Amino acid sequence: MLQTKGYAVEAANAKFKNFDFERRDVGANDILIEIEFCGVCHSDIHQARNEWGNSIFPMVPGHEIVGRVKQIGEAVSKFKEGDYAGVGCFVDSCGTCETCQADVEQFCQVHCAQTYNSTEMDEKTPTYGGYSTQIVVKEDYALKITDTENLAAIAPLLCAGITTYSPLRKFKVGEGSKVGIVGLGGLGHMGVKFAVSMGADVTVFSTSPSKEADAKKLGAHHFVVSKNEEEMKALGGQFDFILDCVSAEHDLNAYLNLLRLDGTMCLVGVPEKPAPVHAFSLIQNNRSLAGSGIGGIKDTQEMLDYCAEKGITSDIEMINIQDIENAYERTIKGDVRYRFVIDIASLKNA
Amino acid sequence: MLQTKGYAVEAANAKFKNFDFERRDVGANDILIEIEFCGVCHSDIHQARNEWGNSIFPMVPGHEIVGRVKQIGEAVSKFKEGDYAGVGCFVDSCGTCETCQADVEQFCQVHCAQTYNSTEMDEKTPTYGGYSTQIVVKEDYALKITDTENLAAIAPLLCAGITTYSPLRKFKVGEGSKVGIVGLGGLGHMGVKFAVSMGADVTVFSTSPSKEADAKKLGAHHFVVSKNEEEMKALGGQFDFILDCVSAEHDLNAYLNLLRLDGTMCLVGVPEKPAPVHAFSLIQNNRSLAGSGIGGIKDTQEMLDYCAEKGITSDIEMINIQDIENAYERTIKGDVRYRFVIDIASLKNA
Repeated sequence: MLQTKGYAVEAANAKFKNFDFERRDVGANDILIEIEFCGVCHSDIHQARNEWGNSIFPMVPGHEIVGRVKQIGEAVSKFKEGDYAGVGCFVDSCGTCETCQADVEQFCQVHCAQTYNSTEMDEKTPTYGGYSTQIVVKEDYALKITDTENLAAIAPLLCAGITTYSPLRKFKVGEGSKVGIVGLGGLGHMGVKFAVSMGADVTVFSTSPSKEADAKKLGAHHFVVSKNEEEMKALGGQFDFILDCVSAEHDLNAYLNLLRLDGTMCLVGVPEKPAPVHAFSLIQNNRSLAGSGIGGIKDTQEMLDYCAEKGITSDIEMINIQDIENAYERTIKGDVRYRFVIDIASLKNA
Repeated sequence: MLQTKGYAVEAANAKFKNFDFERRDVGANDILIEIEFCGVCHSDIHQARNEWGNSIFPMVPGHEIVGRVKQIGEAVSKFKEGDYAGVGCFVDSCGTCETCQADVEQFCQVHCAQTYNSTEMDEKTPTYGGYSTQIVVKEDYALKITDTENLAAIAPLLCAGITTYSPLRKFKVGEGSKVGIVGLGGLGHMGVKFAVSMGADVTVFSTSPSKEADAKKLGAHHFVVSKNEEEMKALGGQFDFILDCVSAEHDLNAYLNLLRLDGTMCLVGVPEKPAPVHAFSLIQNNRSLAGSGIGGIKDTQEMLDYCAEKGITSDIEMINIQDIENAYERTIKGDVRYRFVIDIASLKNA
C-alpha cells in the first residue's frame, strides 16, 4: 500500500487537518499520479459540510486533479511514466451497463465510484479525492493532458470544464446560436469561454453589475443584470439555449421565458431546494428545461483536447492547502475569479 | 353579416345562456362551416370561469369544431361545398413571422387569433368559438376531415388529439419506445391510443385504480397506481418518454426519476400553480422536462390523416348544449370517458 498525505474533514462541522492514508498498490491497469494541482469545486463545500446529506467521513475532497504519472501497471497502454494526467469526478464504473456502454459512465447503473465521498466498486472501500499527494486510478478513468503549459489552470476543466462543455455540445450550440449564460462563477466563466469559442452570440446574466467588465473580457457579447425586469422582458423569446450555472435559489421561469421556439435551458448548478416551474413557461414555444451532469470519459477527453487546441483554460487563484477554509468562505460569497486551485506542493512540503 | 346562434357566459360566475351574434361575411379566402359537433375541453372551463385571469366576456367557448362546408369564398381551393371541415384552437395568425413560417402558428410572434376568448388579427374584434351554429374561417386555418363515419368522435382530435400527437412525434416515440402516460382523462386517453399505435410499450399512471380496465382496453400494456411509492421506485430510470396529461397539482420529480438516459417528460396539462422541480431530478441521467402546446395547422392535418388511416377517434359522451353546466362539473371530477361532445343540433333547434 502507498502511504499518502491528505487534507480531510472528520465531520460536517470540523476544520480541515492533515490526514495520512493508504492508496492501493498499482495494479496491472492502474496508473499512479503524483498530484500537482487540485481545483476547489463548490460541491466540495456542499459535501464537506454534509449539505446534501450523503457525506462519508473522514472526507478528502477534490475531483479536479492534475499531475504527473509516476508509475504504470504492466497492462497500461495509454500512459507512460512522466506523462501528465487528470482525474475528474469519478474513478470507476461497471463498464458494461447500458449507460457505461453509451460513454456516460457517470450514470453507471451498477455503481459510479466517485472520486471522493464514495466507494470503490466493492461498495465498501472509501474513495479519497485530490486534496492529497497522489492517487491510483485505472488508466481508463484517467485523462490525457497534452497542454501542460499552465497545468494549474487546466485542473478545473476536469469538473467545471466538462460540466459546461457537455451540454453546449449536446444542444448543438454553434455559429450563430443565441446563448445565455446565467451566473458568472466557476461554471459560468467556463460556459462563456466555450460558447464564445463555438461561435455563439453570448449574453451573460448576473445579479452583480460589477461583473460586466469581466464578462466582456471573457468574450461575452452582451451583459444583463438579471434583476432588471424591463430588460429581461425585452429579451423574451430570443434565446436558442441558456446554460444555468447558478446554485443559489432563483426564478427559472424568468429565464425560460427568454427561450425561442424549441429552445432549451439546461441546469448545471444544483440549488438546495426544488425550484417552481410553471407549465406555461414550458408550453409556450415548446420549450425544454434540461439537466446535465458532468460528462463521460470520452467527452471529457474530447473537451481537454478541444481546450488544448483552442487555448482554453480556467481563470484561477492559486492557494496553499492551508488556506482552504478561507477559500471555501470566499467561494460561497462568489469572491473568486473564477476558481481556486490548490498547489499540492503546499501539502507535500507541510 | 351572418346571424349566428351561440351559447355564452356573460361573466366568470354566470350560467350559460343563448347568445345571438354575427359572423363576418364569407371573404375570398374564407369558408363558412355549419357546425355539427363541438368537443368540451378542460380549458373551456378554465376560461369560462376566468381561472387564468385573461377572460373576455361574453364568451362563446369551443375549439374542437367539426362540421360541413356550407359556402366558400371565390379564392378558396382546398375546400368545396359539402366537404367536412374542422377548426381547432386558433383561426388566424400573421403567417409571416419565424414561428408561422416554421408551421407552429400557435406561437405566432405577432398575434395568434385563438378560436375564442381572443381577438381577430385587428386585435379588437372578439372571436367566438364552437358552442355555436356556424363559423367563418380562412381556409388556411381550417382542417380537412376525410373520415366522416363518426364525426362527433373526431371533434376532440382538434385539441386533445393534436396536443398529445405532437409531442409523441417531436420526441420520436416509435417501435420499442418505453412510454408513460400520466393521467387518464381527455388528453391521456388520446395519448395512450397514439403511443400504442406508434408501437410503444405503454404504461398508464393514474391515481385511480378503477381506471386499470379502461387503460388496458385503450391498449396500454401496463398500469401503475401512482400513489404506490414502492412500485414507482422500482420503475426508476426505465422510461424513454413520459407524457404528463395532468392539470391537477402533482409531484413532477416522482415521474422525472423514472426517465432513463436522455429521457424526456413533456407537460401538456397546465396545473394552476408552478410545480417544484429539483435540479438533481434533471441532472441525473441528463433528463429533460419539456412543454408542448397544441400544434400547427400542418401537424394537425397530419394527425387527422393519421387518425383516418389508423381508425383512431376519441371516446366520447354526447350531450345537448343545455347540459353544459353538468358536463363541466363532471369534467372537473374526471367523471367522463373521455370527452364530452356537444351535439350542435340541440342549439340549432332550441
